[in-house]
Amino acid sequence: MSEGKGDIALIGLAVMGQNLILNMNDHGFTVVAFNRTVDKVERFMANEAKGTKVIGAKSLEEMVKLLKKPRRVMLLVKAGSAVDDFIAKLVPLLEAGDIIIDGGNSEYQDTVRRCKELLAKNLLFVGSGVSGGEDGARYGPSLMPGGEPEAWPFIKDIFQSISAKVDNEPCCDWVGPQGAGHFVKMVHNGIEYGDMQLTCEAYSLMKDALGMTCPEMAEVFGDWNKGELDSFLIEITRDILKFKDTDGKYLVEKIKDSAGQKGTGKWTAIASLEYGVPVTLIGEAVFARCLSSLKDERVSAAKQLKGPSTTRYEGDKKAFVEAIRQALYASKIVSYAQGFMLMRETAKVLGWKLNFGGIALMWRGGCIIRSVFLGNIKHAYEKNPELENLLLDDFFKKEIQKCQESWRKVVSTAVLLGIPTPAFSTALAFYDGYRSERLPANLIQAQRDYFGAHTYELLSAPGKFVHTNWTGHGGSVSSSTYQV
Amino acid sequence: MSEGKGDIALIGLAVMGQNLILNMNDHGFTVVAFNRTVDKVERFMANEAKGTKVIGAKSLEEMVKLLKKPRRVMLLVKAGSAVDDFIAKLVPLLEAGDIIIDGGNSEYQDTVRRCKELLAKNLLFVGSGVSGGEDGARYGPSLMPGGEPEAWPFIKDIFQSISAKVDNEPCCDWVGPQGAGHFVKMVHNGIEYGDMQLTCEAYSLMKDALGMTCPEMAEVFGDWNKGELDSFLIEITRDILKFKDTDGKYLVEKIKDSAGQKGTGKWTAIASLEYGVPVTLIGEAVFARCLSSLKDERVSAAKQLKGPSTTRYEGDKKAFVEAIRQALYASKIVSYAQGFMLMRETAKVLGWKLNFGGIALMWRGGCIIRSVFLGNIKHAYEKNPELENLLLDDFFKKEIQKCQESWRKVVSTAVLLGIPTPAFSTALAFYDGYRSERLPANLIQAQRDYFGAHTYELLSAPGKFVHTNWTGHGGSVSSSTYQV
Repeated sequence: MSEGKGDIALIGLAVMGQNLILNMNDHGFTVVAFNRTVDKVERFMANEAKGTKVIGAKSLEEMVKLLKKPRRVMLLVKAGSAVDDFIAKLVPLLEAGDIIIDGGNSEYQDTVRRCKELLAKNLLFVGSGVSGGEDGARYGPSLMPGGEPEAWPFIKDIFQSISAKVDNEPCCDWVGPQGAGHFVKMVHNGIEYGDMQLTCEAYSLMKDALGMTCPEMAEVFGDWNKGELDSFLIEITRDILKFKDTDGKYLVEKIKDSAGQKGTGKWTAIASLEYGVPVTLIGEAVFARCLSSLKDERVSAAKQLKGPSTTRYEGDKKAFVEAIRQALYASKIVSYAQGFMLMRETAKVLGWKLNFGGIALMWRGGCIIRSVFLGNIKHAYEKNPELENLLLDDFFKKEIQKCQESWRKVVSTAVLLGIPTPAFSTALAFYDGYRSERLPANLIQAQRDYFGAHTYELLSAPGKFVHTNWTGHGGSVSSSTYQV
Repeated sequence: MSEGKGDIALIGLAVMGQNLILNMNDHGFTVVAFNRTVDKVERFMANEAKGTKVIGAKSLEEMVKLLKKPRRVMLLVKAGSAVDDFIAKLVPLLEAGDIIIDGGNSEYQDTVRRCKELLAKNLLFVGSGVSGGEDGARYGPSLMPGGEPEAWPFIKDIFQSISAKVDNEPCCDWVGPQGAGHFVKMVHNGIEYGDMQLTCEAYSLMKDALGMTCPEMAEVFGDWNKGELDSFLIEITRDILKFKDTDGKYLVEKIKDSAGQKGTGKWTAIASLEYGVPVTLIGEAVFARCLSSLKDERVSAAKQLKGPSTTRYEGDKKAFVEAIRQALYASKIVSYAQGFMLMRETAKVLGWKLNFGGIALMWRGGCIIRSVFLGNIKHAYEKNPELENLLLDDFFKKEIQKCQESWRKVVSTAVLLGIPTPAFSTALAFYDGYRSERLPANLIQAQRDYFGAHTYELLSAPGKFVHTNWTGHGGSVSSSTYQV
C-alpha cells in the first residue's frame, strides 16, 4: 500500500477530539480527522479546522491511506462497545506494526484485553489516559499512555509535544504495559474525587462552623492557593466562591447539593476492594456523593434527627481557618499515599513495572489534580524509587507532623459540632491505623476462630495457623496442639 | 421413574453438610447423603450417621432414585464452578418440577443466572444463605432461601423445622426471587464485618485509652451482653477475653493482628458502590482488615510516624466505658440502617419484593449477628413495612438521640488520643450527613461544571440542568441562558 503524509489519524470529533487535533496541528503535526457521522468532519473542516493542515477523511479507508507508516490511529470515542466496533473495522485496513491508541475513559481491564487481542494480529495497542478537560486537550493535557511498549517510540514525539509542560518537562511519559495507562488515569480520577470532597469539607466547616460568607471563603482559598495547597482545584474553588449570578447573589449557594458518582471514582474504590488496599478516602468521597444524591431523604431526615445544640465554633476564627488548611493538607497527603499504595499493589499483582515519579510528573500539570504538591511527590520518588509509602518519605513525614495537632483539633471539633467530615476523619483514622504496631484485629481473628474455626496466627509463630477450642465443648484442644 | 422414600438429598459432606443432614434427621426427615469422593459417604455412614435414618448413596443416579417427588436436592459444595458442575450432572437425572437448592456461599449474580437457566429446563432453583457456622448447621441455622417461589411450599417444612427458633418463630422465611437469598446472606456477612470491627474499636479504646486488662474488659462485655447489645458477638468477645492459654496468659493478646477479607464483606462493599448506596461502615470495616494485614509495614511505620504525646484518657474511667457502649450501639444502628438501605435499593433496581421484617427475623437467631437488637428491627418493619430508613423509626430515633452525646465524646476523644476508630467515626459522619438538609456537594457540582461543563441543577429549578461559563472566557453565558 502507498503511504500518505498524515502523521496521525484521530477518530471522534466531539469537543475533546477536536481540541486534541487542533493542539497537534499547532505543534506541526498533520492530522487526519474522521468521525462516524461524516457530516461532522465537513463541519469541523469548514469551521474550527479552517486554515489548518488538518485533513478530513470521508471513510476509514481514505483515512488509513492518508497516513504515514507505521500508521497511528487514535480513538476519542465513547468508552465501551464503540471502541471495539472501531477496532474491528480498523483491523482489516491496517498492517503489522501499525498502532491503535484509545484516548477515551476506558476501563483498564478492557484495555488489557484489547492489547492482547491486537498483539495476536501484530498490531500495537495503546490505552492512554487524557486529562485536563476541554481546555487541557486544546492547550496541553496530561497524557498517560500504556500498552505495547514497542508503540512508544512512534508516538512519544506527538504525545510529549502536545502535553502540558511544567518546568519544561512534559506531563506525559510511558506508564507501563497493558492497561497501565488507563489504570493510572482511573486512580487519578479517584484522587480527584477525594480532592473535591476535601475542599467541600473545608468549605462546609468555614460556612457552618464559622459562619463565613462566600467572598470571605474565596479570600481564604485564594490565600491557600499561594502556599502548599497551590493547585487547580483550590484556584477554581476561589473563583467559584466569588462568582455572582445575574441577580448579584453568589451562584454556588443556589446549586443543588447532589453530586453524581457513576464513573471512575467508583471504579477506583472497587479496584481498591478487589486488590485489598485500604483506599479509604476515595471510598468515603464516593459514598459522600451517594449520600448527597439522597436529597429528598435528607430533607425529611433533617426535620426528624437532631444534632448538637450548636454548630458554631466559639474559639479564634482565624486560627481555626488555619487549622482547617492543615487538616486539608494532611488529609490530602494520606489520600495520595493511599492512591500510590493501590498502584503499587496492582502493579505487583499484574506484574507491571510502574514509574511512580513519572506518574507524579504526568499529574503535575495539565490535569484536574495538577498542583505544586505533585512536584513534592515526584521529588520523593526520585529520591527513592523504591519508597514503600509516601507517608514514610522525609518531607511528607515532617509535613504531616506539623499539621497533626490542627488536624485532630478540626476533626474532633467537627464531630462535636455535628458537621460531617468523612474524608478528613477517615484520613486521620488511616494515619493512626497505619502507624499502629498493634491494631485490634487480633480480636477479629479470635472471633473468626471461635465461631468458624478459621484458625489464626500467633505473634510468636508467624506463618503457623492454629485453632483453639474456645468453648471447651468436646475436649480441651489448645492452640498449640491442633494445627491446620 | 419410580419414587423412593428420601425427603431430600444433600450433596457435599464437609462439616456444614454433615451437620445439616444430622439436623434434618433429628427433625424426622429422611436424608440421602452423597459426596463427590464416595469414600466420604461410607465414612460418614459408619461414624457420624450411624444409627440414624440417613441413607448413603454411591452415585448421583442412585441418590436421585432414592428421592420422593418432586425431588429436592441440596448442594453444600464450594461456591463457583463446583456448583455448576453438579447442576450439569443433575439436570439429566431430574424431572420437571424437581428442585435444586444451593446452600453454599455463592455470589448472588450466579444464583440469578442459575435460576434462569434451570427455569428454562423446568427445574426450580433455590439459592439459600445458611448462617451460624458448624454449630448453627447442627442445631439450628439461620436460613435465607430465595429463587423460584414455586419451590418454597415444597421446602418450607424442612427448612423451617431445622432452622433456629426465637420465641417459637423459625429464623427462616422466603426472602424473594432469583438471587435474593444469597444477596441477603451477603449483606448479613457485610454487617457481620461491621459488627466485628465495632467490637474491635471498643476493645481498642478500653485497652489503649483506659489501660484495662483482659478480665476487666471481659467483665464489661459480659455486662453489655445483658442489655441493648445482647448478642452472640458480644457474648463470645466476653469469652475470648477471659480465655487463658496453657501458660496462664490471655490468648487473645498473643494472636497476630492481621485479619483476612477476601469474602462476602468485600462483595457487600462492592455492591454498595455499584448500586450507589453509602454503606460506609461496612466499607471501612473491610478496609480496616486490609490495613491490619499490612503488619510489616505498620511495624515499620510505628517507629517513624508520631502520634499525640499520650494515648491515655484522664477522665472518669467508668463513665467513659459507658460512653463507649453508647458509641458502639449508635454506630451499630447506623450500620444496620445502611445495610437495609442497600437491600432496599437493590430490590428496587432488580424488581425484587423483599420482606424486611422477615429478614430481621431470619437474622434474629441462628446466625453470627443474632441479637436482641434484630428483634427491634423486626418490630420497626412490622409497624411500618414501608419504613424509608431505620434511622427514622421512632424507637431507633430515640435510641440514637440518647447515645449521641457520648458517641461524639468517644469519637472526638479517640481522635485526640490518636486511637483509630474508623467505624465509629464513619457512622457518626454518616448520621450527621444524613440529617443534613444541605451538604457541601453544591461545590462539587460547581467544580465539575467549571472544569468539565458537566452542568448542575439549581435548588430553585429541580430537574433542569444548566451550565455556567465560570471563567468568562468566550463571553458571559450565564446559568439561565445556556441549558442542556
